[in-house]
Amino acid sequence: MRNIKGILAYDGGAYNGWQRQGNTRNTIQEKVEQMFCKLLEEQIEIHGAGRTDAGVHAKGQVFHFHTESSMPVSDMCQKANAYLPRDMAVLELQEVNERFHSRLNARWKWYRYIIDNGAVRDVFSRKYAYQILEELNLEKIQKAAQNLCGTHDYRSFCSLKRMKKSTVRTVYTIEAVREDGKIYLDFYGDGFLYNMVRILAGTLIETGLGKREPEEMAAVLEGKKRELAGFTAPAQGLCLMEVGYGTERDYNIIYR
Amino acid sequence: MRNIKGILAYDGGAYNGWQRQGNTRNTIQEKVEQMFCKLLEEQIEIHGAGRTDAGVHAKGQVFHFHTESSMPVSDMCQKANAYLPRDMAVLELQEVNERFHSRLNARWKWYRYIIDNGAVRDVFSRKYAYQILEELNLEKIQKAAQNLCGTHDYRSFCSLKRMKKSTVRTVYTIEAVREDGKIYLDFYGDGFLYNMVRILAGTLIETGLGKREPEEMAAVLEGKKRELAGFTAPAQGLCLMEVGYGTERDYNIIYR
Repeated sequence: MRNIKGILAYDGGAYNGWQRQGNTRNTIQEKVEQMFCKLLEEQIEIHGAGRTDAGVHAKGQVFHFHTESSMPVSDMCQKANAYLPRDMAVLELQEVNERFHSRLNARWKWYRYIIDNGAVRDVFSRKYAYQILEELNLEKIQKAAQNLCGTHDYRSFCSLKRMKKSTVRTVYTIEAVREDGKIYLDFYGDGFLYNMVRILAGTLIETGLGKREPEEMAAVLEGKKRELAGFTAPAQGLCLMEVGYGTERDYNIIYR
Repeated sequence: MRNIKGILAYDGGAYNGWQRQGNTRNTIQEKVEQMFCKLLEEQIEIHGAGRTDAGVHAKGQVFHFHTESSMPVSDMCQKANAYLPRDMAVLELQEVNERFHSRLNARWKWYRYIIDNGAVRDVFSRKYAYQILEELNLEKIQKAAQNLCGTHDYRSFCSLKRMKKSTVRTVYTIEAVREDGKIYLDFYGDGFLYNMVRILAGTLIETGLGKREPEEMAAVLEGKKRELAGFTAPAQGLCLMEVGYGTERDYNIIYR
C-alpha cells in the first residue's frame, strides 16, 4: 500500500467547496476522487488539508490518498491532469511515509485575500478578488492586522455558533500590502476556524473603510462573540496558497 | 458638440468581438453604445480603434463618440462603469479635439499573445492564455520573430481571401519573453490585418515546436498565400494592450 501526497490548484468558482459530504454535490474532493478512481481503477479516498468554502480558490491545497497501484507518480500526475476539468490541476505528486496525513500533520497554512481597490475595477481579476471602489486606509488595516495576530481564542471570528472543540489558534502574521490597485492580505497561522479568514478579512476591510479602529481588535477578540467582528468577506477573494508540514521556524525562514 | 475619447478594458470571452454589424448580436461595441445612449439620453455612436475578434480581450481599446451632453467626463466615467457589465470597464474618458478619430488617427497598436507553457496548466489563466504543454524553443521563436518584422506585404498572414485594400503593414518589433511558465509575445505595429496577430502567433508557435525554421519566414512573407503561414492561434490568448496616437518615435521612447 503506497501513501501519495499531492498539491492541487483550483478555481473554486464553479464548486460547492472542498468537502464531499451528505447531499453536497459538485465538490472539489468528489471530482478529484472520481478522477483517481477512474485512473487507478480502485476505490480511492482523498483527504484534504483544508476544507475550503464554496467559491474559495487554491494554489496549494494538499491532499493524500492510499493506493495499491504501482504507477510512477510522474505518470500519475500527467494522466490526472489530462482527466481533470480545466479549472483544476495537480501540481505535484510524491510518495510519502505511510503515516503522513495531509490534515493532521499540517503545521501552518497560508491564505491570501485579494481586494481590488483601484479607481476602476480590474475586469480580469473580477472572479479572484473582491472589488471595493472606496480607497481603503492601508495603515489602519496594518495596525489592526498586528492586533489580530498571536495565540487567542478566535471564537468571534468563527461562523459556527456551537464549537465543541477548542477555538484557540495561533496566527503568526497578517501582512497587508498594496500593489497595482490591489490590496493583498496574507494570513499565516497554525490553523483557521470555519470562515475565520473571511471574517478577519471583513473586519480588516471595515477598519480600512474607517468603520472600526485598530485599537478595537483586542476587545473583539476578548468578547468571544461572532457579532463583535466584521462581515464575512466574499469567497471569491480568498485563496489557499500553501500548507506547511515543517516547523513554525521553517515558515519564518521561508516567508520573512 | 463634444468629442470624447475613451479607453476600455474587457474580457472578450462572452462576446462576439468588438464590431456591431448586421445580424451580429452581443458585441462589445453594442454594449458600450447602449450604455452611453442610456446614460446620456441621446443617440450615441461609438467608434473603436481596432475590431477585435470574438473572444479577444483588451486592456487598452480606444474609442470615441460625439455628444451634446455637458456632463463632466469624470462623472461620465464613474456612471459608465456602474452601468457596464462586470467584464468591461472604462479606464479613462477625456474631451478631445473635434477632429480626433480613434481608428483613423491611430499610429501604432500593441497586441500581446500569452502562451501558458508551464509543465502543468495554470488554472487561473486558462481563459486568458493558450495552453501548450510541450516546451517551446524560445530562441527559435525570437529568431523567427525578428524575420517577421519590418515593412512587408503581410497577405500570407491575413484570413480574408480577397483584400482590395493594401495588405502592406509595418511591424516595428515582436518581442518574446518567458516568465513563470508563460511565454509573452508582444507585437507592435502600425496596424494589423484581419487575424494577422493570431496567424503570426500561430506561425511562431509552430516554429517553437520545431515544425518550422526561423529562416523560412522570408519565403512565407514573399509567397503571399495564407496557406504558407501557420495556424490561427486561439482568440483567448490575445489582448489589445494599447493604441498609440503619437509618432513611431514616441513608441520607441515608451517601449524601449
